[in-house]
This record gives sequence, C-alpha cells and structure tokens, in this order.
Amino acid sequence: MKRIEIINGPNLNLTGRREPEVYGCTTMDEMVAGLRGQFPDVEIGYYQSNVEGEIIDRLQSVGFEADGIVLNAGGYSHTSVAIRDAVAAVTAPVVEVHISNIYAREEFRRHSLLSEVCRGVVCGLGIDGYRYAVMSFL
Amino acid sequence: MKRIEIINGPNLNLTGRREPEVYGCTTMDEMVAGLRGQFPDVEIGYYQSNVEGEIIDRLQSVGFEADGIVLNAGGYSHTSVAIRDAVAAVTAPVVEVHISNIYAREEFRRHSLLSEVCRGVVCGLGIDGYRYAVMSFL
Amino acid sequence: MKRIEIINGPNLNLTGRREPEVYGCTTMDEMVAGLRGQFPDVEIGYYQSNVEGEIIDRLQSVGFEADGIVLNAGGYSHTSVAIRDAVAAVTAPVVEVHISNIYAREEFRRHSLLSEVCRGVVCGLGIDGYRYAVMSFL
Amino acid sequence: MKRIEIINGPNLNLTGRREPEVYGCTTMDEMVAGLRGQFPDVEIGYYQSNVEGEIIDRLQSVGFEADGIVLNAGGYSHTSVAIRDAVAAVTAPVVEVHISNIYAREEFRRHSLLSEVCRGVVCGLGIDGYRYAVMSFL
Amino acid sequence: MKRIEIINGPNLNLTGRREPEVYGCTTMDEMVAGLRGQFPDVEIGYYQSNVEGEIIDRLQSVGFEADGIVLNAGGYSHTSVAIRDAVAAVTAPVVEVHISNIYAREEFRRHSLLSEVCRGVVCGLGIDGYRYAVMSFL
Amino acid sequence: MKRIEIINGPNLNLTGRREPEVYGCTTMDEMVAGLRGQFPDVEIGYYQSNVEGEIIDRLQSVGFEADGIVLNAGGYSHTSVAIRDAVAAVTAPVVEVHISNIYAREEFRRHSLLSEVCRGVVCGLGIDGYRYAVMSFL
Amino acid sequence: MKRIEIINGPNLNLTGRREPEVYGCTTMDEMVAGLRGQFPDVEIGYYQSNVEGEIIDRLQSVGFEADGIVLNAGGYSHTSVAIRDAVAAVTAPVVEVHISNIYAREEFRRHSLLSEVCRGVVCGLGIDGYRYAVMSFL
Amino acid sequence: MKRIEIINGPNLNLTGRREPEVYGCTTMDEMVAGLRGQFPDVEIGYYQSNVEGEIIDRLQSVGFEADGIVLNAGGYSHTSVAIRDAVAAVTAPVVEVHISNIYAREEFRRHSLLSEVCRGVVCGLGIDGYRYAVMSFL
Amino acid sequence: MKRIEIINGPNLNLTGRREPEVYGCTTMDEMVAGLRGQFPDVEIGYYQSNVEGEIIDRLQSVGFEADGIVLNAGGYSHTSVAIRDAVAAVTAPVVEVHISNIYAREEFRRHSLLSEVCRGVVCGLGIDGYRYAVMSFL
Amino acid sequence: MKRIEIINGPNLNLTGRREPEVYGCTTMDEMVAGLRGQFPDVEIGYYQSNVEGEIIDRLQSVGFEADGIVLNAGGYSHTSVAIRDAVAAVTAPVVEVHISNIYAREEFRRHSLLSEVCRGVVCGLGIDGYRYAVMSFL
Amino acid sequence: MKRIEIINGPNLNLTGRREPEVYGCTTMDEMVAGLRGQFPDVEIGYYQSNVEGEIIDRLQSVGFEADGIVLNAGGYSHTSVAIRDAVAAVTAPVVEVHISNIYAREEFRRHSLLSEVCRGVVCGLGIDGYRYAVMSFL
Amino acid sequence: MKRIEIINGPNLNLTGRREPEVYGCTTMDEMVAGLRGQFPDVEIGYYQSNVEGEIIDRLQSVGFEADGIVLNAGGYSHTSVAIRDAVAAVTAPVVEVHISNIYAREEFRRHSLLSEVCRGVVCGLGIDGYRYAVMSFL
Repeated sequence: MKRIEIINGPNLNLTGRREPEVYGCTTMDEMVAGLRGQFPDVEIGYYQSNVEGEIIDRLQSVGFEADGIVLNAGGYSHTSVAIRDAVAAVTAPVVEVHISNIYAREEFRRHSLLSEVCRGVVCGLGIDGYRYAVMSFL
Repeated sequence: MKRIEIINGPNLNLTGRREPEVYGCTTMDEMVAGLRGQFPDVEIGYYQSNVEGEIIDRLQSVGFEADGIVLNAGGYSHTSVAIRDAVAAVTAPVVEVHISNIYAREEFRRHSLLSEVCRGVVCGLGIDGYRYAVMSFL
Repeated sequence: MKRIEIINGPNLNLTGRREPEVYGCTTMDEMVAGLRGQFPDVEIGYYQSNVEGEIIDRLQSVGFEADGIVLNAGGYSHTSVAIRDAVAAVTAPVVEVHISNIYAREEFRRHSLLSEVCRGVVCGLGIDGYRYAVMSFL
Repeated sequence: MKRIEIINGPNLNLTGRREPEVYGCTTMDEMVAGLRGQFPDVEIGYYQSNVEGEIIDRLQSVGFEADGIVLNAGGYSHTSVAIRDAVAAVTAPVVEVHISNIYAREEFRRHSLLSEVCRGVVCGLGIDGYRYAVMSFL
Repeated sequence: MKRIEIINGPNLNLTGRREPEVYGCTTMDEMVAGLRGQFPDVEIGYYQSNVEGEIIDRLQSVGFEADGIVLNAGGYSHTSVAIRDAVAAVTAPVVEVHISNIYAREEFRRHSLLSEVCRGVVCGLGIDGYRYAVMSFL
Repeated sequence: MKRIEIINGPNLNLTGRREPEVYGCTTMDEMVAGLRGQFPDVEIGYYQSNVEGEIIDRLQSVGFEADGIVLNAGGYSHTSVAIRDAVAAVTAPVVEVHISNIYAREEFRRHSLLSEVCRGVVCGLGIDGYRYAVMSFL
Repeated sequence: MKRIEIINGPNLNLTGRREPEVYGCTTMDEMVAGLRGQFPDVEIGYYQSNVEGEIIDRLQSVGFEADGIVLNAGGYSHTSVAIRDAVAAVTAPVVEVHISNIYAREEFRRHSLLSEVCRGVVCGLGIDGYRYAVMSFL
Repeated sequence: MKRIEIINGPNLNLTGRREPEVYGCTTMDEMVAGLRGQFPDVEIGYYQSNVEGEIIDRLQSVGFEADGIVLNAGGYSHTSVAIRDAVAAVTAPVVEVHISNIYAREEFRRHSLLSEVCRGVVCGLGIDGYRYAVMSFL
Repeated sequence: MKRIEIINGPNLNLTGRREPEVYGCTTMDEMVAGLRGQFPDVEIGYYQSNVEGEIIDRLQSVGFEADGIVLNAGGYSHTSVAIRDAVAAVTAPVVEVHISNIYAREEFRRHSLLSEVCRGVVCGLGIDGYRYAVMSFL
Repeated sequence: MKRIEIINGPNLNLTGRREPEVYGCTTMDEMVAGLRGQFPDVEIGYYQSNVEGEIIDRLQSVGFEADGIVLNAGGYSHTSVAIRDAVAAVTAPVVEVHISNIYAREEFRRHSLLSEVCRGVVCGLGIDGYRYAVMSFL
Repeated sequence: MKRIEIINGPNLNLTGRREPEVYGCTTMDEMVAGLRGQFPDVEIGYYQSNVEGEIIDRLQSVGFEADGIVLNAGGYSHTSVAIRDAVAAVTAPVVEVHISNIYAREEFRRHSLLSEVCRGVVCGLGIDGYRYAVMSFL
Repeated sequence: MKRIEIINGPNLNLTGRREPEVYGCTTMDEMVAGLRGQFPDVEIGYYQSNVEGEIIDRLQSVGFEADGIVLNAGGYSHTSVAIRDAVAAVTAPVVEVHISNIYAREEFRRHSLLSEVCRGVVCGLGIDGYRYAVMSFL
C-alpha cells in the first residue's frame, strides 16, 4: 500500500473561507476526504502549519518513508531556502502544488525556490491540482 | 461531446527519440492514442509545428470553438509574445504543459511568457502532464 | 505615383473581432479600403502574416522598391532581431504603428526592438495610426 | 467599543533594552500601558512573537474580528510573503509601524513586502508611531 | 468649436535653431501658425516653458477645459513623475509628441514616464507629429 | 510658541478635487484650518508650489528657524536629489507625509529619495497624516 | 566521404547586396561554390530560410546524419530557444559562424543563445568564417 | 571559565545522515562531544532548531551572557533579516560557520545576510569549522 | 577679452554656511570676487538658481556667446535630462565642477548626466575647482 | 614576408598539462612549431606571460609593425580594460582566440572585453583556432 | 613531512603597519615565524607579491607539489579570473583567507571570484585565520 | 620644499603617439618638463608602468613621504581593487587625473574604483589636468 503525504503551508488552513473567487470554496478537510474516497488503496497523510520550521520538521519525519509528498508551501515557496534544503535532503519525491496560477500574479510570486528540487509542479488548476499530484505517484 | 485540442511546439515531434532520459520514450502518436482510449467521449485534436506563426494560426483556427486547449509551446514558451497574444485573443481556456521540469533547468527556461495568460501549468510530470491537463477541462 | 506598403504581423488579422474595447471594431480590410479611398493617388499594398519569417520575406521583396513601409509587427516588435535586421537592410523608410498604447501595457511590451531602426513611431491612436504613418511618406 | 490589536514581530521584545539610541528606552509593556491609559474606550490587545508562523496564527485569530491591527513585523517585514498573505486574507485593516526610519538604513531594509497590502505606514517616529496608528482607526 | 492646447517643454523654444539636422529648421511659431491655418475651426493654444513646475501649472489651468492636449515635455518626459501626475489629474486627453525618434537615441531617452498616462505617442515624424496629434482629437 | 511649516509639492493644490477616491475630498485650506483649530498654541505655516526650485527656496527660508517641517513633495519625492539636499542642509527636522499609500502604487512611486534624510514618514493615512506629523514635533 | 551542412538564417540571402561594407560583396552562392571547389572530397549541403521553424525543420532532417553543421542563424541567434533546443537535440556537432564581429555591435547582439550548445564559434572573419568552420570538421 | 554557545539551524539535525558526500558522516552529537573533549575548560552549549523564531529566542536567551556564539543558520543564513537583527542586538560576538563551501554552490547561497553582522566566517572546512570558530573566542 | 560664465545650481547659495566641513567656509560671493581679482582680463559672469528651468534659461541666454561656461548644477547633475539637453544645444564649451568628491558619496551621486556632454569635470578639489575650470578656457 | 605575432596570457603555459579534457594535450611549443611548418613563408613570433602588464608591453612593442596579432589573453580577456586599450592603441589587427568554448562555461567567462576591439574571434575549436586566426591574416 | 605554502597578494606586505585597527599590528614575518613555531613538523613556505601575474607564477610553481596552499589574494580576490584559473589548474587544495571580514565591507568586496574554486574560506578572524587554514590541511 | 609624485598607468607611455585626436600630441616627457619649469620649487617625481603590481609598489614606496600623488591609472582605474587598497593604505593624498573625458566614453569607463578613495578628480581637460592636480597640493 502506497503512502502519500500532503503538506500545506501558511494560510492554506483558510482555504474555502479566504478569497473564494481565487481559491474556491472547498475546504482542505473536504479535499482530503475526497482524495481518500477516490484512492482507497492509498494511505494519504495530511499536515498543515503556518510555521516554516514545522513544515521542515514534517518533511524530515515523513520524507524518508513516504512514497511521495505533495507540497503546497504557500508564501514560503518564494522565500524559503530552508524548506528547499529539506526537500532536497529527504528521499521521497516531492510534487509542488499551487491552487491559483502563481505565474499570473505579483512578480515576486512567479518564482518558487522549491520547484528546482521538486519533481514537477501543478499550478492554477484549483483544488484538483492535489489530485493530479497524487496520481503522479501511483 | 467536448472538444479538446492539443498543440505542440518545436522539437516535440522528436519526443520518444530525443534525449529519452529527459523526455521519456513514448512518442506523441502513442500519447495521443492513449488519451483517445482513456477519454472515448472527448474529441481530442492534435497538431504540431516547428513554426511559431503556424502555432498562432492553429490557435486562431481552433481557439474560438474548442472547450480547452493543451499547449506545449516548447522553446517558444520563453520568448513568444506573439503566441501569448494569440492565447489571450482566443476564447478557449488554455493549460500549459511541459514534459520536463523547466524550473530545474537553465535560467532562461524558468520563465514562460505564456503562463500568465493560461489557466494553469503542469510541468515535470512527463507525458502524463497532457492527461492531467485534459482532465482539468472535463 | 507613390507606393506605400502596409505590413501587419501576428494576430492583427483578428482586428475588429479580438478585444474590440482595446483594438476597436474596424477590420483591416475596412481600414485599407478607407486609406485607398482617402489617398487615391497612392498605391497602397497590404500584407499580413503570423509567421515572423514571412514578414521578413515581405520586407525583402517590397523594401527595395516601395516609397515607404508602414509596419505593425505586433508581438514580434518586442522580440525579433531578425525583423529588425530586415528593416535595416532594406532601403525604404519604415514607420512603426501600434493600435493600442503599448507603453501603458505590460512591461515587456514597452520596448520595441524595431523602433531604433524605424524613422518614427505612432502608437495608441487606434486604426488612425496607419493613416498618419501613410501621410508621413507623402 | 472598538477593538485594536497590536502585533509585534522578532526582537521587539527587546525594545527599551536593545540599542536604546535607535529604539528609545520605553519598553513595550510601558507603551501598551500608555496607550490603554490614553484610549480608555478602546480594547487594545497585544501580542509578540519571534516566530513568523505564530504571527500568522495571531493575524488569523484576531483578523476577522478586530477593528484594526497595528503591525510591526520587524525583520519579517522585508522577507515574509506568508505574513503578507495573512494580512491580505483577514478582513481587518492593518497599519504598519516601524520605530526607526527604515528608509534611512541598509538597502534591504528599505522595502517592506507588507506595505503594499497595508492601509498605511508610520515609520521613524519612535514609540509614538503606535499611537498614531491606533488613532487612525478611531 | 474645439479647443486644443499645445504645451512644449525645455529647449523646444530653440527649435529651428538648435541642431537643425535633428530637429529641422521650422520654428515653433511657424509650426503653430501652420496648424492654425490648416485647422481654422479649431482653437489652438500654445505654451512653452523651461520650468517643470510651470508646465504643471499650465496643464492644471487648461486641462479641465481643453478638448485635447498635445504635450512635448522634452527632457522632462524621461524624469518627471510630477508632470505625469498632472497629466493623470486633468480630464483632457493628452497625446505625447517627440520631434526626433527618441527610441533611436541614448538609452535613458527611450523611456518616457508620461506615455503610460497619455492616450498615445507620435515620435520621429518631425514637426508634422504635432499635426497628427491635433488630428487625433478631431 | 512652536513654529511648524507645512510644505506641499506639485498637484497637491488640486487635493479635494483630483481623484477624490484616492485623495479624499478635504481641500488643503480646510486641512490647514483644521490643524490651526486643533493646535492653537502652534504657529502653523503653509506653502505650496508646483516648482521644484521654489520648494527648495521655501525650505531654505524657513528651515533654519522652524521647529519642524511637514513635507509632502508629491511627485518630486521620487526624483529630486536637489530637494533632498535642501532637507539635509537645513537644521529643522523634517517629517515626510503622503496622503495615499505610495508603497501600494506603481513601482517607481515606492521609493522616496527624501525619506533617507527625513526623521520619519507617515503614508497612506489620508489627510490625517499631516496631523500626526505635526504632533510628532510637539 | 564526409557530409557537411551549411544552414543560414534570416537576411543572409541578401549577403553581397546588403550593407557590403559590413558583410562584403561575395554572395552565398559564390561562397558555397568556392567551398565545394576547395573541398572536392566533402559533400557540402546548403540551406537558407528566413523562417525560424524551417531552420529547425532543416536541423532535424540533416542533424542525425551529417558529420558537421555550420550554422549562421543570423538574428535568431540572439533570441531562439527553439533553435537552441534543435541544436542540442541532433547528434551532429554544430559550429556557429557570424560574418561580422557581433561582439563589437549592439548590446543585444553580443550574446548568442546558441553558442552554449555549439562546439565553437567563428565570428568577425567575414565569409572566410564558413571555411574555417568546415575545416574544423575535417 | 568561558562559555561558548553553538546554535545550528534548519536541517543540520540531519548532518551525518543527509548527503554525506557534502556534509561528512560525523553527527552533531559526535561533533559537540569532540569539542567538549578538546576544550575541557570551556562550557560549550548546543542548540538546534528548524524554526527561525526559535533560533532568535535562543540568540536572545544566551546572547547577553555567552563569551561567543558559533552560528550555522543553514538555509536561514541567506534569507533572515530577523536572525540578523538578533545577532546585532545581542552583546556576544558571533562567528558564522558553514560546513560546505557555500560560495561554490547555487547563486542564492553565495550571499549570507548574517556575515555582515558577524565577526567572521569559516566555510567549507567541514565539521572542523566549528572547532576553529570556538578557538577564535579563546 | 574673454567671457566666462559661472552657473550654480540648487543649494549652492548656501555655500560657506551649509555643512562647512564638506563645502568649506568661503561663500560664492568671495569665490567670484577672488576669480575676478586673479583674472582681471576675463569677464566673469555669475548666476545661481534653485530652479532647474531657470538654469536652462541662463544656459540658453549666455551659451551662444560666452567663451566658456563653468557649471555646477548641484543635485540636478544627477537627474536632469533637460539641463543636459541645454548644455548640448548651446555652442559654448562647458566644464562641470563639484566642490566635494561626488564619487565618494552616495551611490546615486556618483553618476552625472551632464558629464557626457561637458568637455571635462573637476571634482573634489573644493572651491578651487572653479578656478581650474576657468583656467581651462584661457 | 608577413609577420604574425601570437601572444598568450595567463596559465596558457600549462596547456597540454592542465585539464587535457578541456584544453587537449598539445603543448604550445608543439602548436607553434606546427604553424611554422605549415606556413614557412610567414614569420611567426610567440610570447607568453602571466603578467597583465607584460602582455601590454608586448602588444606595444610588436603592435606597430606586425601584420597581425593572434591574442589569447586567457583570464584577462574578461577583466582587462588595460589590455583592451593596448589592442585599440596599436595599428596591427588583432584576432582573439580561445581554445575552449567560453560561451558554454561560467557566466563571467561569456563576455570578453577584448572582442569589441578585435577584428574577430575564434573560440571552442581547440588548438586549431590559432591556425584559423593566422590564416585570416594571409 | 607536509608542505604548506602561504601566498599573500597586494598590500599585505604592509600588514602591521597599514590601518592597524583593521588589520592588527602583527607583521607577516611574525605571523609566519609563529606558525613555524607552532607546527615544527610542517614545511611552511611564504611568498608575497603585489603583481597579479607573479602570484599566478607562484601558484604554478608550488601548486603541483604542495600539500596545501593558503591564499590571501587581497584586492585581486574580487577581480582576478586569471588567479582563479591558476587555482583551478593546480592540484594542491587551496584555502582562502581574509584578515578582515570582507562581507562587512564595501559591496564589491563581498564577492570573491576565488572562493568558488577553493576548498573553503576563513575570513574576519584576523591573523589567526592563517593558522586555521594551515590546520585544515593537517 | 614640497614633493609631488606623478604615477601613470598602462598605455600612457604612448601619449603623444596614440590617438592624438583623443590624447593630444604632447608626450609625457614634455609634460613633466613643463611642470618642472612652471613649479621650480616643487620636487616632481614621475613613474610609469604597464604592470598593475608595479604601480602598487610605487604607491607604497612614495606614498608615505610625498606631499601629494597625481595618479592616472589608465585602464586599471576601472578594475583595480588592489590599486584602490594601496591608495587607501598610504598617507599621501591622491588626486586622480584622466586626459580624456571618461564619462563621455564607453559605459565601463564611466566608473573609477579609485575615485572613492582619492581626494578629487580632474578629467577631460587634457594634459593640463596634471597641472591642476599638482596645483591642488600647493
């Protein structure tokens, strides 16, 4: 049985409530429940934190055993060398997800420090991006 | 019945033959055949050209009628204001696909002029990226 | 009798149909017909292509004989060293036209590689810009 | 009765003790006590943390109910896309305060990522800046 | 009867005398007289100053009543946020004119701060540029 | 009795009339009258000019005697080394004010050459910014 | 018998006619004839197009069989990621040639996107550059 | 008896396990034990956290009493103004250590925001760097 | 008899009074008197203004008749395209003078827009710089 | 009889010994001997120094009499304004040679300060580059 | 017996005499004597030159035999591609030393071209830096 | 009796012979003889070298005893941190001279690394610049 870990970064706990025209109105709980329903044979872990270092803690604790990590590091994507180092340090492959199309937003949001060490990126396809990322590990 | 058009840019006709360690060994014909098999209820068009202006011609001719366009403009992604203008001019939504992770390659390949006017981007997930892009229109 | 050639680049065949609030609703056919009516003593040629190299072909074929060239290279204005070289190589003077005010749009659209080798630029004055450019050769 | 929340970021717990020639010798406790004395009809909350993610937690927990937030994110002002996203996500207006004149210091300190999503900025007016920020919500 | 105001900036009082190979040998008095002859039904005002602030004064005094303003701010075009703000503040549309082709000159002269808030730009077409700008308001 | 001088730069004479959704509808006369009412024991001078050099003249004439100067140099804030030099040359402390939040506007408006030599900055708090600046000298 | 392919890009069909003080007065036909005379034991192919995509087509069609390719991509050298990708994709080694010294011309002409994937570069040695490039494959 | 505090940042808890060809195979526990053995007369404290704010907490709690601090802030070295402020705020001198040669790695890793406020830097000398840093305080 | 005109820009009327450790304590009146004494056979004119446009007015009025102009445009040296244009337009040669060493001051002060169109520059040699500039015309 | 001078800069004395996979295993002595054999009617001088100033000395001493200079300034190519000035000062034409393809190496190695004042450049064609450069003078 | 070579660049012969508050008052002779006393079993060579090329000569002459090189190239560290090439060409490992903390000084001094090809860097630890560098080879 | 040392850098030995339209036709010998005639009471030393390190040697050997140094470092002015360090290390004041107006030449020649540590700069006034520099020490 495969194990996939989803890790969400800052402000993603507000999804479904914050700017629904940008992020849609599905909450993360609903999204995870949906995925577990669609992929009953996959163990899907979920973690969210607003604290950069706790995301690193999580990456370190699951990143040597999971079969794949789906990472949406939110605002830290654009600034965190430390999370990047953690992604590079663990052995599980990581796919980066962004709900909105970050390339169509502010200049500083168009570059993710993480992409370079991830396997790939899904962005702008809404909540469904998590699903495609999970599928890419199966 | 939905109609999805796939448009591939320069050198993608070599896929399956060119640097297989980067692009895999599935040819585009096989990829399209696979998609048509998976999505029998969707009309899936396919077009490839090495000529920038012919990609624009194609976008103009299908872009007011298709339900979605999957666009991998290859090397033109990074330099073509003209293709970008065509994407913005047509009414069909466009999802950008890259087989390899362009963000982990040369500096000039990390920025796509097209992403800003596309709905979203799937990159680094190999040939499967086309599939996720098609799914996003269904 | 003077001979003026108008050359339009990518996506300008959509004028009158694409984003009319930006580009107006006059088509290029109507514009050319209007000019021929206003300047009956001038031979006014018209050519449009989405292909960068065909614009160069056209510049080479008319650029040693015309009395003036009105060039709206669309998206290629900002990226094409090759068209610039063709403009510099031919003997006819060239005036650059843009329908919309490119200086009030995206950053990458504010710089035209062609302006430096053209005689002058008319921009933001809509379809009438073609008329002023033609007048400047008379 | 209005509710104003003051949120202080890293190293501001040292105020009054750290480089007094730059930051003065009033402590934050004294500052808050002073404000509560001056504005008895206003409920003034206070929070400080050195942890970026905890500042986000705080913004999320008070930012949908307070009438105004006074935010001095210290060193995070110049680097945190994540705090910026939290400021943009909450509904309360935010005014940014800096005790010293950040524009007269090192180059990297002259740009705050937060200013763009705040209502305004007060900087260089010392501890009194908090007072003016509070006043701006009344 | 329409009212068009022409405003010229620094050193344009020397036109016809200064570097005639660049600016031609028509003086501004002759140019204005010519325009008044060509457009007898239009009230054409003319103003020139070397002082940035006086150009702003003029824009403010005519800019809420004129039907169009033709502005050649000379060297201030490239540096004046203040004139730009005045152009944006008034209600009359403004067309920017440059006698020489500024895009073919020094690097710092290729960017005009004003273009972004003007309706359009005519440049490099000599003294005739003023005429085309006037025509664009009729 | 303290003496505070307010100096306003280009286009601020239009306040209350120009883009009221940005600058509010209080005129500068009303603002000054209000301040004089609130601070009867303070001598409050007021000066406005669109001319950069006249702002320097004013700074020189009041800057060696006033107890504080409130300076809103408008568009000159971003371009004037000369006003900066005047601020540095006089002995009175200067506080910079901007009615709108300049950090949330165009890129070139995010940097003020003056801030570095001022004591502090109040920005984005509307007409009230003048009041806080005056208070900071008392 | 070795096979060397020469591929020329935009405007090089004008060589011998366009700016002879820069490009000399030998035509490309004469140059190729000269090379075939000098190297009778080498099969020397020649192709020219103004269309970027046709240069790619040609690279793909000869690039897996030729013993060497001499490429002068003209203005596309400085802008074409797509040609670069084609050069990298084929198996034949490529030597880049420029007739004039591109490093002594405009800034944008000093950098060739192709050089990085070519074996070497000969530039500024006129029409003879093609000869040296051919020699380097023998 | 002197007191030296070692503070390690994100991912350094993995040392000895993560990319041993880069970071060696000594663990931090072994390193600290080694130092305590070598310098029996020095009190050597050790702290590691992945959380930026906790590193600041630690700097504040030991930085007014220790005789020296050895700081390897890992990925935060390149991005943290907040840690920099903490280093500047405390009274103990700080020496920065990096196990690998950061100047020979990715561009963004070549600049440390901390170096400017540290006494010195030891980098690329492996685990021994900690020893030299400790020696520099004795 | 030769005629030399000295033109001083903003804040130079304060010389001898403003920051004497930087600018010395000789006033401009004393400087001019000294020069007239040293060079009795030269007609030495003097003009100062804080207004950019008035400096242009002066350059235009003396610049076609003087044998040389000594120009210290103060803060406008670094920002004024308009003064630069006036210097280029007049026929008299211009030598630029700065009392202090502008190259050893703030970054933005290290580049003068005027130097490129002046004959030469004397900087950092104090009030004596004016003397050397005058000598260079004799 | 023609006279050609070859001048080699720093570290080129190690050729044949240093990184043979990059620079080949022919020594410079062998290269020069080869050239003298191939071109018996040409006087071929050779000089190498690691000292920038000695390369200038050599350029000055042979550069007014030789018929051509082949210059490989090694690492000084990218940094030496002084050698550039010497190349520009002498009357002999200079062709620049690089053994490896400098455009495919580190960023700082892609720009040569010398190319702009040389007649042309041969790069990446190994030791043979010297031969082509010599041929270009015959 | 190990052999370590110390190579010092420009102005380091003045150490102990030049700006002692920055560089201390130990001379290089004393430093070398001290090291030889501390490490009696190590052969420690010493060389200093102000000439860039002579430093390269020295690197070439000792760099294929020494067990380690301690290099303080002074001002050449920031500008010399040629020394960098020599470091890369020799087989001995090189450790870079700077007496002062170059990262806390002028901008141009914060980047060393040499660091990238050295094993590591010790900087800001004064004369003791040489000792740590020597130790790193033992 | 005062002692002034003149130090000339690379290619200045060619003065009077090299590009006389730029550098005039006076040789350096004639210039020095002229100065010694004009200032019989001053001991005027003269030194020229093409070698950067020898200029440093000279600065070190005369720089602690001379009353002033006139330095024209030629092409090294723009690239030499090492000469800059020597200028800063010696106790004699240094005035920088350039014969031509370096600010009106190529971009890279507009910035001198030395100016910041010199007392002042004289540039563009030809051979006379040396005279003014000498005068500034008297």
